Amino acid sequence: MNAAPGSTDVVVVGGGIGGLATAYALASSGHSVAVLERAPEFTEVGAGLQMAPNATRILKEWGLLDEVVRAGVTPRRMVYRDALDGSELTHLDLDDGFVRRYGAPYVVMHRSDLLSILARACERAGVRMVPDCEVTDVVTDGDAAIVRSARGEFRGGLAVGADGLRSTLRGKLSDDEPICSGYVAYRGAFPVEELGSRLDKAALDEVVAYIGPGRHLVQYALRGGEMFNTVAVFKSPAYERGERDWGGPDELDAAFAGSCDEVRQGIGSLWRDRRWPMYDRLPIPGWTDGRLVLTGDAAHPMLQYLAQGACQAIEDAHVLASGLGGGETDWTGAVERFEAERTARTARVQNTARVWGDIWHVDEGAGRMMRNELFRLRDPRDYKYVDWLYAKRDEPRV
Amino acid sequence: MNAAPGSTDVVVVGGGIGGLATAYALASSGHSVAVLERAPEFTEVGAGLQMAPNATRILKEWGLLDEVVRAGVTPRRMVYRDALDGSELTHLDLDDGFVRRYGAPYVVMHRSDLLSILARACERAGVRMVPDCEVTDVVTDGDAAIVRSARGEFRGGLAVGADGLRSTLRGKLSDDEPICSGYVAYRGAFPVEELGSRLDKAALDEVVAYIGPGRHLVQYALRGGEMFNTVAVFKSPAYERGERDWGGPDELDAAFAGSCDEVRQGIGSLWRDRRWPMYDRLPIPGWTDGRLVLTGDAAHPMLQYLAQGACQAIEDAHVLASGLGGGETDWTGAVERFEAERTARTARVQNTARVWGDIWHVDEGAGRMMRNELFRLRDPRDYKYVDWLYAKRDEPRV
Repeated sequence: MNAAPGSTDVVVVGGGIGGLATAYALASSGHSVAVLERAPEFTEVGAGLQMAPNATRILKEWGLLDEVVRAGVTPRRMVYRDALDGSELTHLDLDDGFVRRYGAPYVVMHRSDLLSILARACERAGVRMVPDCEVTDVVTDGDAAIVRSARGEFRGGLAVGADGLRSTLRGKLSDDEPICSGYVAYRGAFPVEELGSRLDKAALDEVVAYIGPGRHLVQYALRGGEMFNTVAVFKSPAYERGERDWGGPDELDAAFAGSCDEVRQGIGSLWRDRRWPMYDRLPIPGWTDGRLVLTGDAAHPMLQYLAQGACQAIEDAHVLASGLGGGETDWTGAVERFEAERTARTARVQNTARVWGDIWHVDEGAGRMMRNELFRLRDPRDYKYVDWLYAKRDEPRV
Repeated sequence: MNAAPGSTDVVVVGGGIGGLATAYALASSGHSVAVLERAPEFTEVGAGLQMAPNATRILKEWGLLDEVVRAGVTPRRMVYRDALDGSELTHLDLDDGFVRRYGAPYVVMHRSDLLSILARACERAGVRMVPDCEVTDVVTDGDAAIVRSARGEFRGGLAVGADGLRSTLRGKLSDDEPICSGYVAYRGAFPVEELGSRLDKAALDEVVAYIGPGRHLVQYALRGGEMFNTVAVFKSPAYERGERDWGGPDELDAAFAGSCDEVRQGIGSLWRDRRWPMYDRLPIPGWTDGRLVLTGDAAHPMLQYLAQGACQAIEDAHVLASGLGGGETDWTGAVERFEAERTARTARVQNTARVWGDIWHVDEGAGRMMRNELFRLRDPRDYKYVDWLYAKRDEPRV
């Protein structure tokens, strides 16, 4: 790897899923691209990740889908269950009909596997990968973006800020801060044999979401069924009380104590030594500052309830590259087209993710009763709630 | 009227709708009955009242339905609208199919008209009507109930406590108190010509319920369309804050300020000088103390959201009289059968009324969205939500 400063068509700041997807898409369209990553390696912490067809359709176009499918699992169903009594509320078939409808499968996989696939693809496409390179600023100088880093200045026609939820580059165009939801996630990904009797074998080909008052638990298999992934999310009472230390393992156990057996069992399949407080931001009208454009979580961080964070970052990459065309250098026009196409859609996803979380976490009593009735009434062949998100045309069909 | 103490088969304490219905039912089955009413006249304060087919079917059997229908209105539809935007959410057809399904029509009428019809029916059936007669106690003496009043002792084989929400007789068998919901109702019943342009003429043949966050408004016509009835109910912020004086007209106006035009207009059709705080009680397992049995609101007071208070009191009267048979004097057995048949059903109505209110008053955001979606998805020909309440067999069909 050449870590010396220099000049490329595009300088991508941030080597997470969104940054690498963008670098790959642009490099595949004939642009020279450098990716600057603060960390010493291109790796991801975390566990499982869901890839809906709005993202896998793009991976297919990029020629990466086979590798993604081999590294992951294509579940048969997405099942919603009540976290209190365990009963099934509704499900989404992820079968052949689903794949035909949306042109690509639903895939769940390890975050690090997706990142590796994207990193290898970037390397094959000739992307300059620069780890251990913290960016301090991006300024526009005439027709150039100048990316200042500990390793010196990188220049490009365009700088892409893909530096995530806590983006420093976003500060150049917005003074908003991440908004804490008061919810915290615990995750765990373990080899199936380690889980033993704690594992519900029947769930190996399903994504199961147990949803309940102020809490939910999601489980699915990874790596062709060799690993099993669990995510538990709950509202922290300590956060509500305004305490600094909140969301600890004691609160985890207390939050899920009144849940059904399967959910309480699932709590045993989590790492207890780390946790992810859940943040998002409100939509902002634009993502550009001169020759800097934000993408992914830097542009539109969202709560994870629609499992669309990575998917929307991949959509960003695809739209940005498609708007440029091969060898095109109208960076300003490309970024304008990118914003025009992406801001309304990602704002809708951000807003809907919040509402979807509220629906999952609705209180006991009338709220839960209505939610469960509504879910149970849904015809499993009715796709109106996901068409707007998964179908190729962006227009909502609802 | 003979107001002197004396002896009858049954002594009914309380001359409201439930007391008179019970007296009429028992007198029609051949029993001698006295009704003791604290007030100087058999009258009702209040405005409109809804009579669902579970009650009108009984009035039909009693030969009172024609008179009730002539005094009231048989609306064509019951319509639910969102109180914020006014849009229709769902409706229940109250047409010929409805009448065939349940064996009797839905009728709305003035409370005082129903009371007058029942009072006249009681007089025709030979019931001893004793106004201005406050009851101080009911004691059981061997096979007799002794009803002590300011006018002396009335004796019967059975005493029926129909003394309403704040029943003093209930204290003989339960130490519970009415539970305040923190909601308060304003009512108004005006001649149609007085309302002028404030009246939505289209609504004259409908029961319209505008439901919204912490508030609702119900409107329908009375007396063959000559009068128009409005009820507005809202959650009092002053009550929430623990204040003694709560639910005043200022709070009424504030609670409905953010509602749609039709609802804000409806607030102009209320009496502002009186109001009805809304109370209920929790179900209790039994209603008897020796030869005293409670009925109606004294036994199972409920929030008004299902409009079943008077209907359930009429069901009580019907079941109690049917269990006795003509001339039967097994009072103890009759009361046991009455409790066995009535406690579970009225507990369900009490509990469902609370939940139904919660559904009406659900907060904006995810709750309202789910409620509206659920209501809009409902097929207007689907009666599963009302069969358990309106159909002849008590067993729930859901």
